[in-house]
Amino acid sequence: MEKYISVKDLEEAAIALLPQNARDYYKSGATEEFTLKENKVAFQRLRIRPKCLVGVLNYNLRTKVLGQDVSMPVGIAPTAMQRMAHPEGELANARAAEAMGTIYTLSTIATSSIEEVAAAAPKVTKWFQLYIYNDREVTRNLVLRAEKAGFKAIVLTVDTPLFGIRRADIRNKFTLPEHLRLANFDGYLSTKIHSTSEGSGLNEYVNSLFDKSLTWGDIQWLKSITKLPIVVKGILRSDDAVKAIEAGGSAILVSNHGARQLDGVPPTIEVLPEIVEAVKNYNVEVYFDGGVTTGTDVFKAIALGAKMVFVGRPALWGLAVSGQAGVMKMLNIFRTELEYTLQIAGTPSIKDITKDMVRHESEYYKLVSKI
Amino acid sequence: MEKYISVKDLEEAAIALLPQNARDYYKSGATEEFTLKENKVAFQRLRIRPKCLVGVLNYNLRTKVLGQDVSMPVGIAPTAMQRMAHPEGELANARAAEAMGTIYTLSTIATSSIEEVAAAAPKVTKWFQLYIYNDREVTRNLVLRAEKAGFKAIVLTVDTPLFGIRRADIRNKFTLPEHLRLANFDGYLSTKIHSTSEGSGLNEYVNSLFDKSLTWGDIQWLKSITKLPIVVKGILRSDDAVKAIEAGGSAILVSNHGARQLDGVPPTIEVLPEIVEAVKNYNVEVYFDGGVTTGTDVFKAIALGAKMVFVGRPALWGLAVSGQAGVMKMLNIFRTELEYTLQIAGTPSIKDITKDMVRHESEYYKLVSKI
Amino acid sequence: MEKYISVKDLEEAAIALLPQNARDYYKSGATEEFTLKENKVAFQRLRIRPKCLVGVLNYNLRTKVLGQDVSMPVGIAPTAMQRMAHPEGELANARAAEAMGTIYTLSTIATSSIEEVAAAAPKVTKWFQLYIYNDREVTRNLVLRAEKAGFKAIVLTVDTPLFGIRRADIRNKFTLPEHLRLANFDGYLSTKIHSTSEGSGLNEYVNSLFDKSLTWGDIQWLKSITKLPIVVKGILRSDDAVKAIEAGGSAILVSNHGARQLDGVPPTIEVLPEIVEAVKNYNVEVYFDGGVTTGTDVFKAIALGAKMVFVGRPALWGLAVSGQAGVMKMLNIFRTELEYTLQIAGTPSIKDITKDMVRHESEYYKLVSKI
Amino acid sequence: MEKYISVKDLEEAAIALLPQNARDYYKSGATEEFTLKENKVAFQRLRIRPKCLVGVLNYNLRTKVLGQDVSMPVGIAPTAMQRMAHPEGELANARAAEAMGTIYTLSTIATSSIEEVAAAAPKVTKWFQLYIYNDREVTRNLVLRAEKAGFKAIVLTVDTPLFGIRRADIRNKFTLPEHLRLANFDGYLSTKIHSTSEGSGLNEYVNSLFDKSLTWGDIQWLKSITKLPIVVKGILRSDDAVKAIEAGGSAILVSNHGARQLDGVPPTIEVLPEIVEAVKNYNVEVYFDGGVTTGTDVFKAIALGAKMVFVGRPALWGLAVSGQAGVMKMLNIFRTELEYTLQIAGTPSIKDITKDMVRHESEYYKLVSKI
Repeated sequence: MEKYISVKDLEEAAIALLPQNARDYYKSGATEEFTLKENKVAFQRLRIRPKCLVGVLNYNLRTKVLGQDVSMPVGIAPTAMQRMAHPEGELANARAAEAMGTIYTLSTIATSSIEEVAAAAPKVTKWFQLYIYNDREVTRNLVLRAEKAGFKAIVLTVDTPLFGIRRADIRNKFTLPEHLRLANFDGYLSTKIHSTSEGSGLNEYVNSLFDKSLTWGDIQWLKSITKLPIVVKGILRSDDAVKAIEAGGSAILVSNHGARQLDGVPPTIEVLPEIVEAVKNYNVEVYFDGGVTTGTDVFKAIALGAKMVFVGRPALWGLAVSGQAGVMKMLNIFRTELEYTLQIAGTPSIKDITKDMVRHESEYYKLVSKI
Repeated sequence: MEKYISVKDLEEAAIALLPQNARDYYKSGATEEFTLKENKVAFQRLRIRPKCLVGVLNYNLRTKVLGQDVSMPVGIAPTAMQRMAHPEGELANARAAEAMGTIYTLSTIATSSIEEVAAAAPKVTKWFQLYIYNDREVTRNLVLRAEKAGFKAIVLTVDTPLFGIRRADIRNKFTLPEHLRLANFDGYLSTKIHSTSEGSGLNEYVNSLFDKSLTWGDIQWLKSITKLPIVVKGILRSDDAVKAIEAGGSAILVSNHGARQLDGVPPTIEVLPEIVEAVKNYNVEVYFDGGVTTGTDVFKAIALGAKMVFVGRPALWGLAVSGQAGVMKMLNIFRTELEYTLQIAGTPSIKDITKDMVRHESEYYKLVSKI
Repeated sequence: MEKYISVKDLEEAAIALLPQNARDYYKSGATEEFTLKENKVAFQRLRIRPKCLVGVLNYNLRTKVLGQDVSMPVGIAPTAMQRMAHPEGELANARAAEAMGTIYTLSTIATSSIEEVAAAAPKVTKWFQLYIYNDREVTRNLVLRAEKAGFKAIVLTVDTPLFGIRRADIRNKFTLPEHLRLANFDGYLSTKIHSTSEGSGLNEYVNSLFDKSLTWGDIQWLKSITKLPIVVKGILRSDDAVKAIEAGGSAILVSNHGARQLDGVPPTIEVLPEIVEAVKNYNVEVYFDGGVTTGTDVFKAIALGAKMVFVGRPALWGLAVSGQAGVMKMLNIFRTELEYTLQIAGTPSIKDITKDMVRHESEYYKLVSKI
Repeated sequence: MEKYISVKDLEEAAIALLPQNARDYYKSGATEEFTLKENKVAFQRLRIRPKCLVGVLNYNLRTKVLGQDVSMPVGIAPTAMQRMAHPEGELANARAAEAMGTIYTLSTIATSSIEEVAAAAPKVTKWFQLYIYNDREVTRNLVLRAEKAGFKAIVLTVDTPLFGIRRADIRNKFTLPEHLRLANFDGYLSTKIHSTSEGSGLNEYVNSLFDKSLTWGDIQWLKSITKLPIVVKGILRSDDAVKAIEAGGSAILVSNHGARQLDGVPPTIEVLPEIVEAVKNYNVEVYFDGGVTTGTDVFKAIALGAKMVFVGRPALWGLAVSGQAGVMKMLNIFRTELEYTLQIAGTPSIKDITKDMVRHESEYYKLVSKI
């Protein structure tokens, strides 16, 4: 484990280890994958402005998310079918989050069930990512089970009337391996996802089952069946952020779905400021995912207003490399990089990471021009 | 056909299949080919801003162009000598457009005649692309034949007093293959294009025959001989757009001629907003071509004000790969990518694709700087 | 000759033909060669905005420079020691300019004398590039001989108190080949340039002989010894342009000396607008050199206010490839590319190439953002 | 030595010569090394605006720093453990600075002691770089010894509560070679730095010994024990610059610690103008380091307000190549490049290098757009 020093190291190792069907599924973005690249590149346009001599003997990474303490502002984003990466899949991932004191988000389309995850990692702060199915009874059942199993929030994905075009999955005719199942469902809904046409089996599944008629009013329905706070995931516009909150959301997760839905949407770090600004008069939290691979990425997102940052692919790479230990390694890399960043940037606690701590490169160009 | 998932796939296959003379003719841009590259790259500077939870159960791609229904906002741009790509050339291309319910534009310099195309694809919405020859009788004859054959518009190319410098054609001493002819002409005008000097045979042809003295007043002459609406193709300036409309044009096709006329002109997606703005007080439609290879490119052009988008080279790639079926595959790729884009962007019908749906990357940089 | 279609073709051929000492001397820029690259790249940031249907039957490239007719707005810039490229060196170069009806500028540091060039190309419009030597009698002698030999202007280089650092020349210990001499001088001044230390022989020569104490007042001295108009070459700042004119210059040649003097200075096309603006209330012409390799580069410089464009390296590449015929080929490439550009851009004569014909890419980005 | 013409030449030679442990330590930046690259690239965005004909016969590079004459505005920045590069390490480096008439800065973490350096290079202007240790007696002892040994300033590093993450050092488990010691310390503090865990031995050392509780008030303590002026090194924000001066600093050294502390901080040349502006009403000097490899880099930093520029890695490359002679070669390359720059830019003395001599590229784009 010692040889993995960066998230990039874990990614490279995982890419080499995973079978093609799973590897391509995890790493692909939509169509030309321009936004996939931009999700990372956009961070480079932000500069950190460190403060000196502030006294950093007592630094710490703790923060509070939806009223719950977490040990660091990096949690696990929902990703589907984690047993393709490792036999223990979601269980290992959740246990790693538990061991590290952070949040684990379980996907609707998981290869371990709500109850299995709750049993495996009873103390972790668990959130449940929800897709709303045409069959509302199916959907209600998922929510009630999550609530019963101790999940603390519903992360409602709002950017997915259908899954985006991921060309590698089409080429591979993506199929869930024979020995796995969608563990949150019974009968035909848990049927192994496999391609019956010339495309991806997953897209066929989603196309036939997800509710494409959803509107903001449906959050009201969701609130009518659960007391859990609703985190609205997939927002990329300020007007949608306001709609999400006014419809009853408790928090916004700024996300472009790992650049997997629609190529050409902005890298998430570019839209974060607009969203934070839009909801500043509401008492809600804003979270972030997309392209985060280093501690300084996390720092930049926090400086622009994110309360919590989630990572999806990095957890899959850790999982593929070494199960729970691999995910913990990944989280520890973020923890270490953040600890260094907090000390060197002169922001010993998370609340010290104010807007003033980052500046867009174009602002620097203007300063050089003017002075 | 199943292995072609993107327009890029078709392009790569076509490039491998075509003989050098045709391949180079189709793919070249003017001189250094900077604008050729920019036509594609400029799309990347535009971000799509998807809306969530708008209810997209009933999405569709239909739109109306010059009063005619089309099944999708992607039509076939005029390109010369299509039988170099496939024995059925223009006929296959027109049949594909017919099968897909969209527009086919026949080039003046076609290797199938107006009447052959009309016979092959009687139900397609056909437009006729016109070059005005020094010999006005020749020109009038083309227009009258097109009108008689059921073509619905004249697409008057206004950017071509002569053909641009395409170095590969000069190197190849471009010659129309022996077995082909310019089918819209008799006698010497249909003579096989071949090089008599050190340059491209096509440039010699155009130089000797096209009317370089054309001015905006000549649109009046064109209107005097036909009732068909005139689409003015090749506009890159707002003042020219106004002139085109005031001279009697019914619509503007923003185009830099596939970057084949003059290197260094702007990528077309950059000039589209200026043209749309310039003619907004006229009751005219604006169309677009240039560098379009994905559904998100089409979406961006529509968001910036294009009523219809045309593709030239993609049809040639499809044609080269598999005749009518190849062109249909190409159109189906666009259709699929657009269907996904409409749903995920939250714009279930074409009219929902408003300006607000895209933003230039530099606007995002400013937002990050300010907030 | 037929196989050379672009200036780039000639450059590649020349690079392959020339011996290292000459090749490196001709192609090098100062130190890291950043400005050398930027001289070309900066042109790409400018977009040409072609006008349609203006009637271009009667286009022509003729213009007037310092009252003299020239057949095209592309002339030959001064470059040193042209016999390193071809045995006929400056003579072949001047004859090519003569045959093409444009301007030839002879360098002070030529391998053919003022009188030899005048005899070889009696009808060409000849200008004499002047370095002012510590020995004013030597300098005066050069000016008087040029005037007597029918040269029509003195091109005073003002950016060269010493030659820039060109690392390849240092590595090569640049030496003028044994059989050549600096033909404008007698005795020790014509002594073959060779390295006596660890550096370039040319730098040693220049360091010891050029007058580093020169100020704008010295133009008055130059005017006192000749009636020829003085073209001030090497200006990169608006304040210097004004100084040059007020000191008695008749024209400004915006130049960064082929990026050979100081790395990090702006590409010349970037500074041209500032210079043109600065001298607009004076009755003077502004010329341009730097990175020009295509007809569209020439067009852009004219649109930004240049009355004439000069090319240095392209003439050397032509010379190396085939003497006078090679230089003529180079000029013919520019002529052809300009003829196409004028017609397609809708500017049938040089005076039609107004500022409005080009726009910086950043202006387009702003337009896309706003509309 | 003759074959080294640029700093880049020395770097390449040194990289080839050094053992991996030392080479990686010297060349690494923090984590992803984005800022490491930007430190160089950012210089390219600045254009030099040379003045012509100002008379440069009497140019010179002399300047005054903290009241001391130096022969050129390029001094030696502190770098740790120089004997890893050459057996004579700091001694050779200091002797080179002495021979060249510039400043040598000795690191706290040196492999030669304060007294050894003072004995080896008695006449050089020596500054002592200070890290403040938890043990204030240790720290006081260093300062008093430096003052006694004739050092002229304390360069207090304020950006290092701990050392940044340099991945290569972790991979190498960086260890000070057996035969070397931290010569400024006795006992356990001079113990050979070696890795006891999975990380870098140096980071362990720094983490355990440096005072992380430091605040601006501690400068007062430092002033209470020494009369030497305090140069505050590591400032990247205007507010910190003011704090540093108001806390008692005599000068600011703008530095991002060679991009080794925190990746994503701005390249230093971007922040220099902000710092200079912030302290303009105080009577203090501003110095600069970061990414400087050419004479034009030095020129740009001076134009933006730096009184003196320091180079760290270039001295290590020279040292590795040839000890004192190599460092002198490096300084001579800077001297030569600066001499050329001063003459060609038309700024014969350092004080002539005003703000007006540089302009950001984006300002040029605006000028091209407007005029």
